[in-house]
Amino acid sequence: MRVLFAAPAKYWPAWGPALTAACPEMDLCRDGDPASFDALIYAPGYPEDGGPLDFTPFTRARVVQSLWAGVERIVTNPTLTQPLCRMVDPGLALGMRDYCIGWAMRAHLGMDRYAQDGHWRNGLVPPLAQDRQVTVLGMGELGRSVALALAGLGFRVAGWSASGRSVEGIEVLAGPQLPQALARAEILICLLPDTPQTRDLLDAERLALLPPGATIINAGRGTLIDDAALLPALQAGLGHAVLDVFRQEPLPPEHPFWAHPRVTVTPHISAETRPETAAHVAAENLRRAMRGLPLRHLVDRKRGY
Amino acid sequence: MRVLFAAPAKYWPAWGPALTAACPEMDLCRDGDPASFDALIYAPGYPEDGGPLDFTPFTRARVVQSLWAGVERIVTNPTLTQPLCRMVDPGLALGMRDYCIGWAMRAHLGMDRYAQDGHWRNGLVPPLAQDRQVTVLGMGELGRSVALALAGLGFRVAGWSASGRSVEGIEVLAGPQLPQALARAEILICLLPDTPQTRDLLDAERLALLPPGATIINAGRGTLIDDAALLPALQAGLGHAVLDVFRQEPLPPEHPFWAHPRVTVTPHISAETRPETAAHVAAENLRRAMRGLPLRHLVDRKRGY
Repeated sequence: MRVLFAAPAKYWPAWGPALTAACPEMDLCRDGDPASFDALIYAPGYPEDGGPLDFTPFTRARVVQSLWAGVERIVTNPTLTQPLCRMVDPGLALGMRDYCIGWAMRAHLGMDRYAQDGHWRNGLVPPLAQDRQVTVLGMGELGRSVALALAGLGFRVAGWSASGRSVEGIEVLAGPQLPQALARAEILICLLPDTPQTRDLLDAERLALLPPGATIINAGRGTLIDDAALLPALQAGLGHAVLDVFRQEPLPPEHPFWAHPRVTVTPHISAETRPETAAHVAAENLRRAMRGLPLRHLVDRKRGY
Repeated sequence: MRVLFAAPAKYWPAWGPALTAACPEMDLCRDGDPASFDALIYAPGYPEDGGPLDFTPFTRARVVQSLWAGVERIVTNPTLTQPLCRMVDPGLALGMRDYCIGWAMRAHLGMDRYAQDGHWRNGLVPPLAQDRQVTVLGMGELGRSVALALAGLGFRVAGWSASGRSVEGIEVLAGPQLPQALARAEILICLLPDTPQTRDLLDAERLALLPPGATIINAGRGTLIDDAALLPALQAGLGHAVLDVFRQEPLPPEHPFWAHPRVTVTPHISAETRPETAAHVAAENLRRAMRGLPLRHLVDRKRGY
């Protein structure tokens, strides 16, 4: 099996050895005749000296395995006709769970009330987790994992997804119930993909549905929130926004999000794909492609993810 | 059943109705002939106009039920010969679990690295919970609950207690293994009571056993840590101390803990006893005392808790 590592060179030192260890039977190449490859492991930015990759000459490739979970920059490539698979890395999902739980707990406990200024601010007892309502937008692998972990800690969790697909142990609201999902969300965790349907989903009108003092944690995609509506919403009663994803990354130093006292910017750290765990997922899909078995995490081109 | 509410007046508005609701058959009084009472519900500070309460004239009392979990200010009262019970409030335990998980997650994720200064600090990927070692000192009700919740989130948790009593699903180290318990603790959560054996347990020598960059979270008792040793330990490599309990509370405004950039002071908020849940625990014990049944959470005077 000849496989092209079609990703920027900076990823090779970590990924090359991890992929080779996970799939020793593969001949992993960094260049060669496109028609000779059985599969591609792909990340946007390749080729590094040109525009988007032209997938047309990869006539033999049975699968394009993305290195990353988000494929919105790939599905729009009209030359890509081969089956495309997202990366669903168990390490990424675990790291995302850690991130969302940590920032949700910070909001839940009201940690930011306690300044190191010599003032003993007791008497501000937070409610117990069992009296705190959290809504998770997006019930894919990541959203389900975060929702279940928060429920395990005792929080009153509801999920929301366009389809309202059921998740054992979690109340899941469906598409038209978005207003109810928002109105109950003292803490709102956003784990939606970037699709035409999710772009600017949280606009001024929907942000205004959140209860006063609510915290938004966006670890999905930056396009979900109408940036121009977020700062006025904070002015109008929204409590805090923890943002890990942005329309432009890195977020420019002059962006007003950096300076707002109730916005916390983190540098897209919630969704790190870990080569040690992800390489095994890629290897499994390459083997499936070779044997003609159904591929895992195959992208539905219509939905876009 | 006549019961004396022997606690400072400021606690009456919340506790009086909660206790009466939980135990309607009791005649809850705020004063009266000591020899007439079957039981006392007690908190230090009563009587408010005098020294420590003289328990001698309460000849008929079958139980003294503490309002609080910590009884170190009560067990030293030589006039107290009646059975003394600690409060083990499920609400307190849940709030403590929230507190410890929240601050442990903050340390785990390295949240304090991210300043809102326009710098995009990516590339600092924290390990997954499954690669993070946490030690919990104290395997009482609170320590066990915190240890199990952290293990449920995937952390590599070990417990330590003087007796090494076993907890299902948690590796528990016993008394002499304290050095090993400390040496593995990237995050150290302290939930020990105040006894002669725990006072200054974390002295300079033991603090030096923690791995470089470790975070201490003390939500047990302020006497556990040798205060004079803590600041030099931070100088020498200890990462951060989150302190909710102190030898003197409120912590005086001029105390150096307030000003140290790697000390976080919270105002004894981790162990709030919630009247709604705790009143039912008191009621249960009063009924047991009346019926001659074994009391719950009876204090062992030798151990001191």
